[in-house]
Amino acid sequence: MSNISASIITIGDELLIGQTLDTNSAWIAKALNNIGIDVLRRVAVGDDAVAIRRALDEELLQAGIVLITGGLGPTADDITKPFLCDYFGAKLVVDERVLSHVKELFVQRNRPFLERNLKQAEVPDNCTVLHNRIGTAPGMWFEKEGKVIISMPGVPFEMTAIMEDEVLPRLRHHFVSDALLHVTLITSGEGESFIAEKIQDLEAALPGHIKLAYLPSPGVVKLRLTGRGDNAEALMQELKMRQEEIANRLENIVIAMEDMPMEYILGKTLMHIGATLGLAESCTGGYLAHLITQVQGASQYFKGSIVCYQNEIKERILGVEKGIIEQYGVVSEETATAMAKSALTALNCDNSLSITGLLSPGVYDSPIPVGTVWMAVADKEKIRTKKFRFHYDRHLNKELAVQMGMLMIWKFLNNKI
Amino acid sequence: MSNISASIITIGDELLIGQTLDTNSAWIAKALNNIGIDVLRRVAVGDDAVAIRRALDEELLQAGIVLITGGLGPTADDITKPFLCDYFGAKLVVDERVLSHVKELFVQRNRPFLERNLKQAEVPDNCTVLHNRIGTAPGMWFEKEGKVIISMPGVPFEMTAIMEDEVLPRLRHHFVSDALLHVTLITSGEGESFIAEKIQDLEAALPGHIKLAYLPSPGVVKLRLTGRGDNAEALMQELKMRQEEIANRLENIVIAMEDMPMEYILGKTLMHIGATLGLAESCTGGYLAHLITQVQGASQYFKGSIVCYQNEIKERILGVEKGIIEQYGVVSEETATAMAKSALTALNCDNSLSITGLLSPGVYDSPIPVGTVWMAVADKEKIRTKKFRFHYDRHLNKELAVQMGMLMIWKFLNNKI
Repeated sequence: MSNISASIITIGDELLIGQTLDTNSAWIAKALNNIGIDVLRRVAVGDDAVAIRRALDEELLQAGIVLITGGLGPTADDITKPFLCDYFGAKLVVDERVLSHVKELFVQRNRPFLERNLKQAEVPDNCTVLHNRIGTAPGMWFEKEGKVIISMPGVPFEMTAIMEDEVLPRLRHHFVSDALLHVTLITSGEGESFIAEKIQDLEAALPGHIKLAYLPSPGVVKLRLTGRGDNAEALMQELKMRQEEIANRLENIVIAMEDMPMEYILGKTLMHIGATLGLAESCTGGYLAHLITQVQGASQYFKGSIVCYQNEIKERILGVEKGIIEQYGVVSEETATAMAKSALTALNCDNSLSITGLLSPGVYDSPIPVGTVWMAVADKEKIRTKKFRFHYDRHLNKELAVQMGMLMIWKFLNNKI
Repeated sequence: MSNISASIITIGDELLIGQTLDTNSAWIAKALNNIGIDVLRRVAVGDDAVAIRRALDEELLQAGIVLITGGLGPTADDITKPFLCDYFGAKLVVDERVLSHVKELFVQRNRPFLERNLKQAEVPDNCTVLHNRIGTAPGMWFEKEGKVIISMPGVPFEMTAIMEDEVLPRLRHHFVSDALLHVTLITSGEGESFIAEKIQDLEAALPGHIKLAYLPSPGVVKLRLTGRGDNAEALMQELKMRQEEIANRLENIVIAMEDMPMEYILGKTLMHIGATLGLAESCTGGYLAHLITQVQGASQYFKGSIVCYQNEIKERILGVEKGIIEQYGVVSEETATAMAKSALTALNCDNSLSITGLLSPGVYDSPIPVGTVWMAVADKEKIRTKKFRFHYDRHLNKELAVQMGMLMIWKFLNNKI
């Protein structure tokens, strides 16, 4: 059977005024991709029946599957369900299974069941109901002229639960498709153009069913190879061979052969060498600790972070000598060094990283240019320091600082600095 | 002149496999909205000329302005520029101003200027070049049959710079439109249905040019009123009057009359009462400190956080007695209380919050159910504790915990707990 492709329609005025970030369609795209279903397009429209109809008509022209999220809540701004009834010539009926589930949830949450919540249990009479384990609004599966249309609530964790429990297994069962596989290679230290130049011949030699994409982000450039074929195993072997080829060419700028965030790469390294890490964060305000603890099992190597947002805390808790900050300034190599050394002791860890900088114009005047950040990474034997200068706004500078901080620890652990 | 509306097309295979979150179109939608331009639709397509052409044709049928991001980089997977030439019957020419800017950036960044970077300075000969202050790929402004088509690079901070420097001022100048204004009201403590029931009559009485939307997220429900009219001042007055009416009805569940994240609301309160805050975070791993330091000027009220991911750190740095953790367990009211009290002293702050919990199944067996979190908020006179139970995955539980933590501090400061 030929490849089946999907479109995603997300509904909600909040998506069109930029109030809400559309994480749903990214999640859905990834999940579909994993089971070999190509996503053709993602469309966001407002809470408006005409716009929804137009979008659904258009997407059905090309896609075999259309997934819709949003517009299924209990309040007056939700209009998807009546629209779907109209579109599929159905009428709304109360589904007893959904009703008892909704009532149960209200009891669990200790909330009164209101008349308008009854609407949650109404579904078009010609759809297959998709159970929503953790919320009140069920998903719906329609079929029309050989195509599948799926409607789900817009609340992200309800949508993902319905996708995992109901939609993905059914789609896998319903459609057979070519394998669509990806391998990724993460580099750090050179720009996109430099890399492209260096692997020009390898890229040109790629067969038609394998595509290469460059995905630059702060501090790293990811190279993603995407292949398509009917034999998943052979295809994966081929992709790995090409990935290896590129990695050999790029040598020492390659930091990972899998697509994973830096905090996972770092976690793997720490686990591998059996070492622990502690942090002393000033300007990044705990963000680096947050990222590191996003990784399940981080407690095996992460001791903690002292978020010393005020100088007095650097002195009180880290034991940085008052004289150092006074003499050299809080954003200085000396202060970063003292912080990293103190963190080794205070947090009883094998390795430590300190970050001190000025990410955005402060309340008080500063002799240091905005965007200046000093970092130090240390173990019991040695210490390495580095000065950075970031040129963006507070939030992006923070993002860049933590990415650079993780890279710095990674390089330190791998004896690359 | 009647209202002008826009569509946003984001280009990139990475958007269709869910590798990259489409933050660009949310940012653009918000920026357009602020100057009174309605966004009709957002469409994401792959790096494919046929798909881009189809999307552009379709969007031009309804929108007066189409903004395109992505596909302008220097590598082989970028195809937008040749497509635009074809679409607008143009040929590529080197723009001298862009070329000197690109060369300058390469010198600044200490990178070799390669042959393929020359391409960056090529633009279609019938567009207006939009200067990219911080990157190499310029934006392009085309006009066709009274409509405007704008193409920008996909790197978020380059796109936002071009929007701010070039696109928004030009659009404001080019199009006159009705005002489109929003006011938001943030509530906490009741669900969407309960609120809808309580303000049913007020919602029904809204005039046609004002719409109400419910935006639930962890711990809060936002109510957004959107109005449209030719007199911005009168419209804002009308919106504020309706907002006030709803706020009076909902009384004690209203926590803010502006749309802002909880960390900003909390920051305003702390500034207002002139108090400082310190944190002792275990399971949230620094995430709460990170959010609080996202706010410019947080150094005026935020002292820092002790991210005590390991029990030994709770004892070493916070001075929590070993006996307490041994006797009551690390996830307990007693440990949370000891952490909050110790943080008051260690961080020399007026108020402290502690968080200790188990967000996901651990490496070791635990007698505590996964998702259990104890928090304590304290000042020198009093302490309040609360137990939470979250039912989702590690990341969502962390998100919920910090939102609930911020709410708890806010309520404590406002004498609501």
